Amino acid sequence: MSTNSRRVFFVSDRTGITAETLGRSLLTQFPDTEFRITNVPFVTNQLAAEKAAAVIRGAFELDGVKPLVFSTLTDPATQFVISSCNEYVFDLFGTFIEPLEDALGTESSHTAGRMHGIGDVGEYERRLSALNFTLGHDDGLSPRDIDGSDVVLVGVSRCGKTPTCLYLAMHYSIAAANYPVTDDDFSQRGLPKILEVCRDKLYGLTIVPEQLSRIRQERRPEGAYSTLSQCRSEVAQAETLFRDEKIPFLDTTTISIEEIAATIVRDMNLR
Amino acid sequence: MSTNSRRVFFVSDRTGITAETLGRSLLTQFPDTEFRITNVPFVTNQLAAEKAAAVIRGAFELDGVKPLVFSTLTDPATQFVISSCNEYVFDLFGTFIEPLEDALGTESSHTAGRMHGIGDVGEYERRLSALNFTLGHDDGLSPRDIDGSDVVLVGVSRCGKTPTCLYLAMHYSIAAANYPVTDDDFSQRGLPKILEVCRDKLYGLTIVPEQLSRIRQERRPEGAYSTLSQCRSEVAQAETLFRDEKIPFLDTTTISIEEIAATIVRDMNLR
Repeated sequence: MSTNSRRVFFVSDRTGITAETLGRSLLTQFPDTEFRITNVPFVTNQLAAEKAAAVIRGAFELDGVKPLVFSTLTDPATQFVISSCNEYVFDLFGTFIEPLEDALGTESSHTAGRMHGIGDVGEYERRLSALNFTLGHDDGLSPRDIDGSDVVLVGVSRCGKTPTCLYLAMHYSIAAANYPVTDDDFSQRGLPKILEVCRDKLYGLTIVPEQLSRIRQERRPEGAYSTLSQCRSEVAQAETLFRDEKIPFLDTTTISIEEIAATIVRDMNLR
Repeated sequence: MSTNSRRVFFVSDRTGITAETLGRSLLTQFPDTEFRITNVPFVTNQLAAEKAAAVIRGAFELDGVKPLVFSTLTDPATQFVISSCNEYVFDLFGTFIEPLEDALGTESSHTAGRMHGIGDVGEYERRLSALNFTLGHDDGLSPRDIDGSDVVLVGVSRCGKTPTCLYLAMHYSIAAANYPVTDDDFSQRGLPKILEVCRDKLYGLTIVPEQLSRIRQERRPEGAYSTLSQCRSEVAQAETLFRDEKIPFLDTTTISIEEIAATIVRDMNLR
């Protein structure tokens, strides 16, 4: 293994999503190193911890370089087994538990956390109903749909509306509809009629035409649809519409779906 | 504010997803306290940090109790502004940066991290194409679809197949199809014909009939569909099918979509 490559393990007692989210975020701070990542979820007992530790030690023997380990184990005994592997075990959870106990003046429960659990039935159903709404109203809109939506994304075909709607539903339990603007809409002046009743819920997405053309070519390479000139014309007209109608909008070209969603939640005050 | 209620701020220079994921996970360890959470994303400069700090200080004056603050700021100067608010600022990022620099023998870039960025065009397109696949193949399956799928979830209507497929696509870029088993399938012996060619990709979901009945009632309260007896019969036959055909399966009743997805990824070795 080259010196600029490093093995990384995410060890957790549930899905590993927390360890991976913070761990990957920390690793982006070291762009010159290539990280080879292994997720080790569901380490819920001593035996599982020992197995994981054996794999981590084995990686050191294989590579000659100590791997980095990010762990979010809530049980101190299993964490101890992992921490014993080497000095580069980052205990993302335990590090903050004691200071938090001080801050709150109470002991922690030391049990594996449940986030977004179905245990919270109300929250689960809100999320499911947001997802069902979004799935049922993708790429199209009837006046009835608008009543039920929290936000309506507007933009040209393939600018990121659908994944963003799904992310909003999945992570924020937001009922997100979307409306694709096309040449038909541009040929009329002003806001498409159907959108008039939900002006306050509109949010625009735009994208640079070159990127749009590339994305469309993946989907439908032949015909005018994916040509750069068509993309340029649609994007320009969509942005004019956003400006004229004072619809807040965001350029999705260089940001991720997570960031688009978080920006919409903030801008539209959806929480 | 009651003594068992505490205000919490998540402060970040991007979406706040990382701060919130770890922060919420840590807070689950203190089930007796009610946390009132405010997300403060996009704190990218000194002015934004000072604004956030003013809000945090204001909350202390309002409540008479110091709020907890979880931050993931990459810029030491803005972090300093936040850290000065009170002694309960947990620097989720900075805490690990120095030890990581030691481990890697290199300096960190101290720039806001980009996760899942469109910058990584290949990854973005994999994700989009997984999402498009999953959206296009929800609740139904043709032999052509099976070729393109990484996994095929099997289960009775409303047991969690669709949200799980979407989560697999969104977070793991996995092309997930699903097949709803119905009384028509149960009336024939053995595996439904269409599934025979993809035996190795099958994964079953099940659920306790009482919960299934409740979920179905939300959707379609009248008719046999949501009755407990119908749910009992379908679930029993689905589980018999899984056992007879040696399809691995998971009970989704008490676990979250995140956990269902992570379990499938692990069990089916999808990474």
